[in-house]
Amino acid sequence: MAQEKVADDGSIRRSRVMMLVILLRVLALFATTAATVVMALNKESHTFAVATIGNTPVKITLTAKFQHTPANIMFVIANGVATLHSLLMLSVMCFVSNKYDIKGLRFIIVTALDMVTIAVLSGAATAVAFMGELARNGNSHARWNKVCDNFERYCDQGSGAMLASYIGILFFMLVNLVNIFEHGRFNPYKNPIPV
Amino acid sequence: MAQEKVADDGSIRRSRVMMLVILLRVLALFATTAATVVMALNKESHTFAVATIGNTPVKITLTAKFQHTPANIMFVIANGVATLHSLLMLSVMCFVSNKYDIKGLRFIIVTALDMVTIAVLSGAATAVAFMGELARNGNSHARWNKVCDNFERYCDQGSGAMLASYIGILFFMLVNLVNIFEHGRFNPYKNPIPV
Repeated sequence: MAQEKVADDGSIRRSRVMMLVILLRVLALFATTAATVVMALNKESHTFAVATIGNTPVKITLTAKFQHTPANIMFVIANGVATLHSLLMLSVMCFVSNKYDIKGLRFIIVTALDMVTIAVLSGAATAVAFMGELARNGNSHARWNKVCDNFERYCDQGSGAMLASYIGILFFMLVNLVNIFEHGRFNPYKNPIPV
Repeated sequence: MAQEKVADDGSIRRSRVMMLVILLRVLALFATTAATVVMALNKESHTFAVATIGNTPVKITLTAKFQHTPANIMFVIANGVATLHSLLMLSVMCFVSNKYDIKGLRFIIVTALDMVTIAVLSGAATAVAFMGELARNGNSHARWNKVCDNFERYCDQGSGAMLASYIGILFFMLVNLVNIFEHGRFNPYKNPIPV
């Protein structure tokens, strides 16, 4: 009787944790999707008057696109892959039964994939952050001029994408920690199972 | 009798895993220390002739230092912190007994710290990678010129530091995976303890 109660409590707890993990994964999915889309649509054109011939101004139009910076391209790819990863994990959680698990490898594979995703996302977001800093402030030592004074909306949109990506990283970390904590919770070395 | 044997096997296995974790942590420590030192000592001076007055060349000396790029400063700080983190974890493993562990929180705190270290290191190394790419190739769209043609050794040394940092990240990931796998190995939901 007591044993049954313990088992029941365990399964209620597990389903609650599963709901939490699904929620966090959906939030991470939204964040990385937003980051991908906002960065991929980042484009701004400006027309500058460069000279005047007689009374006719000579104008050129410059366009800032996300593809012009390799860090931004990596950012879009990394966030796109993280979005696909979230979708894959959600489908596995919802549609693939727990019995497809050879020697507990499923957990370690999911954890490893999450960890690599966190590392790649963090790399992409930080690279974009430093490129953005360079675009905003320039670097006098290398004689790289600032470009954000002319393309302010472009820079702001990039910053927004970066922020969304960092939020996604946070959710990925939470998912990973909840997964790990839950998996190792009843570690028999320290907490023998209550039987 | 059988139970004793199982317990013995478990403790032998655990001490082997502990040796592996210590080895991986020491390797990570070496890698991040190397990255910190190599980047922090990165400095190159070059003298250029800019004009000639009569027969006297006018020369200027330009110096490239790691401090000139914010990404490099973050890189040094991140790798320094990762080195301290490795030292702290090694001292905790070697000198603090396992009994100082409130409700299994020790494991989850170590895992969370490792994960944050991986994310920060990955961010710093990737930011330096993209800054290096910019320094090597320039960016015609933003009119940022390449600087590595004049400061080749500086760029190579930065790349070396970046490589060391990525190797450190790899070791951190391995440590984390071994820790997690070992901790959750005898998960009673799937593998009841052999009693």
